[in-house]
Amino acid sequence: MYDIIIIGGGTSGLAAAIYARRVNKKVLLIENDSIGGQILNVEVLNNYPGIINVKGEEFARNLKKQVEDMGTDIVIDEVTKLEKEHDIFFIFTKSNQTYQSKTVIYAAGVESNKLGIKGEEEFRGKGISNNAIIDGPNYKDKVIAIVGGGNTAIDSTLYLSNIAKKIYLIHRRDIFKTEPIKIESIKEKPNVVLLLNTIVTEINGKDKIESIKIEHEGKEQNLDVEGLFINIGHTPNTKLVEDLITLNPHKYIITNHDLETQLPGLFAAGNVREKRVDDITSSIADGTLSSLKAIEYIDSKL
Amino acid sequence: MYDIIIIGGGTSGLAAAIYARRVNKKVLLIENDSIGGQILNVEVLNNYPGIINVKGEEFARNLKKQVEDMGTDIVIDEVTKLEKEHDIFFIFTKSNQTYQSKTVIYAAGVESNKLGIKGEEEFRGKGISNNAIIDGPNYKDKVIAIVGGGNTAIDSTLYLSNIAKKIYLIHRRDIFKTEPIKIESIKEKPNVVLLLNTIVTEINGKDKIESIKIEHEGKEQNLDVEGLFINIGHTPNTKLVEDLITLNPHKYIITNHDLETQLPGLFAAGNVREKRVDDITSSIADGTLSSLKAIEYIDSKL
Repeated sequence: MYDIIIIGGGTSGLAAAIYARRVNKKVLLIENDSIGGQILNVEVLNNYPGIINVKGEEFARNLKKQVEDMGTDIVIDEVTKLEKEHDIFFIFTKSNQTYQSKTVIYAAGVESNKLGIKGEEEFRGKGISNNAIIDGPNYKDKVIAIVGGGNTAIDSTLYLSNIAKKIYLIHRRDIFKTEPIKIESIKEKPNVVLLLNTIVTEINGKDKIESIKIEHEGKEQNLDVEGLFINIGHTPNTKLVEDLITLNPHKYIITNHDLETQLPGLFAAGNVREKRVDDITSSIADGTLSSLKAIEYIDSKL
Repeated sequence: MYDIIIIGGGTSGLAAAIYARRVNKKVLLIENDSIGGQILNVEVLNNYPGIINVKGEEFARNLKKQVEDMGTDIVIDEVTKLEKEHDIFFIFTKSNQTYQSKTVIYAAGVESNKLGIKGEEEFRGKGISNNAIIDGPNYKDKVIAIVGGGNTAIDSTLYLSNIAKKIYLIHRRDIFKTEPIKIESIKEKPNVVLLLNTIVTEINGKDKIESIKIEHEGKEQNLDVEGLFINIGHTPNTKLVEDLITLNPHKYIITNHDLETQLPGLFAAGNVREKRVDDITSSIADGTLSSLKAIEYIDSKL
């Protein structure tokens, strides 16, 4: 019987494990892919105060070692079912294991939606990013493109207009889904070029992105860019819990301030929950808080 | 004219500065004491994922260097007045300087209330702590004492019962102000000894704490302890803003999810605001979020 089982080995899950092990709780972390999550795609990490110029991959490796050295059990496996019965959580995995735990911290993250075009996989972490806050400052005085038409794309554009020399904001429609004042602000930025009713069809380069092919009203064109931010939405990994708790309309987990879900003992942390910002510091703070609250939940039980 | 002036040079303020400089905003950080804030009292920092066994002081020094290297202006001075007129903030200091800014991030922190007894200053960072989450794990299998009778003292006791060999919970009254279930849980812990109607009168030791003197019904006694957690409340540093915005009943700043206060352009971050947990990861996440939202506020203005 574990005290805490953490589902998801991104920065939130890893932080949760550290805090749980600091008070000697028995902890299992289950990840279905690679430990580190989204941070693995980060070229150079400079947005985690105290850490300077470290590769995302290296940071993830160090964090994993820290978690292991503290005595966390880690398994790479896919959780297929999550149930709660008489105050105990049962977790079933693809490799036919069943684990039991007093609490669960659900930190399974999100999948970034993809364009599904040539070069998209090849240049991931080599000029392609989903996160302006993390990767943006690497594009100081460079020419970049942003794809998307919702809040994230607009916020990325405003944010990156402080950094990049020139930004092409590429949107397949001609109307943006965001606050009107932000659209007005973007139109005022001298370094932003709006390309509406336009799609990206190819991403080209050698070691890194050098150009993209775009299509507007049937006509193709090449744009030289050194970076491409793809902000066309995320799909939260919440299938496992959708029958246990209520999700928001976009399928994110709703929590209270203590990161509790509707189901006592089930906590959510990181991008998988409805929150304000997608940034490593907030993911790690989420991991911490969920862990402290799970610990409190266990310790307060008579 | 600054884009962002940060009041307070603790971890929240430093994180805010890093994020603001990442997008080239003009930033001034004003601190009235030492850069680092509460982290300076931390003996060994092990609760900031990715950083292992670093002294609080060293971590603060590195963070300060990072902030300076990125081009933040830093002044050591005391802010005496904060005003907003026609969308501009005016900040007056003790040394008769006036600074102007488009936004202000208020991260002035809290003062931990003191017992006011012999040894309290001498052993700060040498066995005395206000924060169980940060310093607790240094007391694995040791005998410690906790002073206080509110939520923080009770939460610290529950938390530290996972770590310490024996805990004396010392309270000057015989009733605790917290959830009854937590009191019941504490009474069940084999390693917690309740000392009610009891006060601490002296803290003694050589290089570190070795014992405390307590008084109960007029009788004095020495207790051998290696750590003393003083959890008798905090006083938030909110005098400067109390006429500008509404504070909660305990004088903490109320913010929304975006860390905005009632006054547009004024953001609050860290312990000075009403929040759930006093931990370095949450302070840094607060600094980040307030900075990103201040940047957005500036960039969205037409």
